Amino acid sequence: MSELSNEYPTHDPEWVKDMHADHYLQSWSKQGGRPRVITGASGSWFWDSDGKRYLDFQSQLVNANMGHQHPKIVQAIKDQADKLCYIGPAMGSDVRSELAAIMNEITPPNITSTFFTTGGSAANEIAIRLARHKTGRTKIIARYRSYHGATGGTLSLTGDPRHHLTRADMPGVVRMLDPYTYRLPTGHTDPAHCPVAQGGPHLEELLMYENPNTVAAVILETVVGTNGIIVPPDGYLQSIRETCNKYGILLICDEVMAGFGRTGKWFAVDHWGVEPDIITSAKGINSGYVPLGTMSVSQELHDWLRETPLPGGLTYAGHPLACASGIAAIRAMQEEDTLNYATQMGARMREELAKLAEKHPSIGDIRGLGMFNGIELVKNRETREPLVPFAAKGADAKPMSDMMAFAMNEGLYLSFYSNVIRLTPPLNISEEDMMHGLEILDRTLEIADRECV
Amino acid sequence: MSELSNEYPTHDPEWVKDMHADHYLQSWSKQGGRPRVITGASGSWFWDSDGKRYLDFQSQLVNANMGHQHPKIVQAIKDQADKLCYIGPAMGSDVRSELAAIMNEITPPNITSTFFTTGGSAANEIAIRLARHKTGRTKIIARYRSYHGATGGTLSLTGDPRHHLTRADMPGVVRMLDPYTYRLPTGHTDPAHCPVAQGGPHLEELLMYENPNTVAAVILETVVGTNGIIVPPDGYLQSIRETCNKYGILLICDEVMAGFGRTGKWFAVDHWGVEPDIITSAKGINSGYVPLGTMSVSQELHDWLRETPLPGGLTYAGHPLACASGIAAIRAMQEEDTLNYATQMGARMREELAKLAEKHPSIGDIRGLGMFNGIELVKNRETREPLVPFAAKGADAKPMSDMMAFAMNEGLYLSFYSNVIRLTPPLNISEEDMMHGLEILDRTLEIADRECV
Repeated sequence: MSELSNEYPTHDPEWVKDMHADHYLQSWSKQGGRPRVITGASGSWFWDSDGKRYLDFQSQLVNANMGHQHPKIVQAIKDQADKLCYIGPAMGSDVRSELAAIMNEITPPNITSTFFTTGGSAANEIAIRLARHKTGRTKIIARYRSYHGATGGTLSLTGDPRHHLTRADMPGVVRMLDPYTYRLPTGHTDPAHCPVAQGGPHLEELLMYENPNTVAAVILETVVGTNGIIVPPDGYLQSIRETCNKYGILLICDEVMAGFGRTGKWFAVDHWGVEPDIITSAKGINSGYVPLGTMSVSQELHDWLRETPLPGGLTYAGHPLACASGIAAIRAMQEEDTLNYATQMGARMREELAKLAEKHPSIGDIRGLGMFNGIELVKNRETREPLVPFAAKGADAKPMSDMMAFAMNEGLYLSFYSNVIRLTPPLNISEEDMMHGLEILDRTLEIADRECV
Repeated sequence: MSELSNEYPTHDPEWVKDMHADHYLQSWSKQGGRPRVITGASGSWFWDSDGKRYLDFQSQLVNANMGHQHPKIVQAIKDQADKLCYIGPAMGSDVRSELAAIMNEITPPNITSTFFTTGGSAANEIAIRLARHKTGRTKIIARYRSYHGATGGTLSLTGDPRHHLTRADMPGVVRMLDPYTYRLPTGHTDPAHCPVAQGGPHLEELLMYENPNTVAAVILETVVGTNGIIVPPDGYLQSIRETCNKYGILLICDEVMAGFGRTGKWFAVDHWGVEPDIITSAKGINSGYVPLGTMSVSQELHDWLRETPLPGGLTYAGHPLACASGIAAIRAMQEEDTLNYATQMGARMREELAKLAEKHPSIGDIRGLGMFNGIELVKNRETREPLVPFAAKGADAKPMSDMMAFAMNEGLYLSFYSNVIRLTPPLNISEEDMMHGLEILDRTLEIADRECV
């Protein structure tokens, strides 16, 4: 090869856009677009090369739970970089032991040990493989309104339309319906009498057909993220847990989005006191500053793994730089009382959204837990006809994409999926910033209102 | 949950071992072991809490190509941490554009754009999914002596016994035999007349049975890593490329281990001037300091992706902290002329190994390319009976594990797989250090010699 060019580091924004368009492949997208160039970020804000500032009402991809460039996390990364960036996963390391010990403390009481991955996909992959080995069974029950990752197994588990992309599904996935109380299965109007919304009865019916002795695990997002911010009714998770117990099926709770304070608790399962066999996470554990995910397992599974090798591994498992950032983020959350703050601010947000609902006929439903909130938009509150079709893209999604563009122009970073807008700012957003964002949202919703009939 | 304990950061080594045993899940292992605690590393060396120093003849998991704690890479991580640790993958970012531009320069001429992942598994996952979308075909041809990753799809592609662990293989994997010239298929003695060692003829035979119109891609490690350090004969890769061209099958070269100077070139394919459709990498790109992998594609694929969305994405795709470390590592390799140095030192290593072969009857074969070397151990040079059985573990592998323990005690970090010892030190190891390591290896091999008959 030739010598590397050295004129690069001018980082002229137009050059950055050119290189992005020509040489960088962007997730889930058609290539060739010239992006906004982000040159910095702090707290709940980021800004571009034109100096325009954006309030991050998404925490990027629901990962920047402690906001951008939190000084304690940044410092921990720099300190660990000076000390030891990497050592192989079989070696003892102070930071991986410390983060493992912290995970033991903050996960539910039955959960004792953790495998550290590079993100949520890898965490869910090892979770289902471990469940299959432990039970000797193959099937995994997963829901439709779900996203579990972009690898072979996890994209097969995913229920949203991205799972159409696998082209060769992992065998053994069985679908369960979702506790989506705003849109119950046809014929049902009362969640308390709908087997799907109750959880256990629906699962029992599936198991009757599938044979429970062939089912290794149920995997679910404790609170559904991208696919609609769906909080299960009280009792749902307990009911699923009981049914799993009855048949020796493991319960895997995917808390890649819901974990680490997003719902106001360390883990969303804590709201219902449910102990899964496995919890997976990523994102909020260190606000995404270094790629990191986790699969944490019960004492029972850990004891079993003393006799049977873990059926997985990664070069970057227990990565020291990543672990150091996780320790710093979790300690910062404790020192800054982030869980309680997120609980209060999240409730405040839903109060304000309720006020917006009085003005905006397009708001069909407001839902959330802690700082994990969303609004579902409709053309008509009575019929609940969605503002845009399920998983709409391009022209079909125009009212939604128009809103995103309007908000971005006003300096508010939002996202949508189908007809739901996600409202997931950093957990430590100031009240003033949150009110500022909601004021822009208020004006943004006028675009949706025009679609109402 | 309760308050987090705050007495942790004493990081007493015994405490680190306890937490590792009780709360950390270790890759591919039975749990509960108390590990060596590594407290620091520099260049080709690392050391433990007892102050004992080890020469890293593995570059950990063949990733620390520039050694440990390279000051330029560490500084780049610290600088980027201060600037911007994370921004979502759809945003423009100076460092992701710069690394994408660098990849365009150092990959083969036909390769123009790169998707940045968190490691090799995720890179191979998107590679095979993309190949399936582009061709509209499902089957992927992979070899037995291979490791492609630990996720659902990549573990199914993997040929070594770890693929027995999937419990639910991804459909569509077809096996091809390996260009393992030291152990040709039964009846063959001359690689030049063995279809398997030539590549194309063996692939043609498989395609005759499989129907080439059902095959999306061939994936192979350009130089086989863990599964035996197998360098293909000259002509092999060209022959595979030609056969792929004939049938519109994409060629995916997995250079997770072989890439970034390990063989003395940026990519191993450069030795034969072959242009794959997709190259994947990880590890050596930044010596593993931050989790990072790549899938780089041809201009033809990139153009196709202007019209069809990339069928994948990751929260940490194009991670700024990871990209910054990759830029620094590649620039350091250029500034320090690492590729030429590795070529010279690698050749020197094989010369020294040839001298060892004169003394040690257990050395059956010496092979490698650049600084990607290995020795295959046998009980008898004439019969080529392996020193231990294929994929031996536990008691069956005792002579191998005894050697590893002896070397470790002498301060040399080695690893083995089956009957092959991997010799993959940092590319910038000093000649003095390398000779020191080979001197310990010399004494270590006496253990193997005792098994010779």
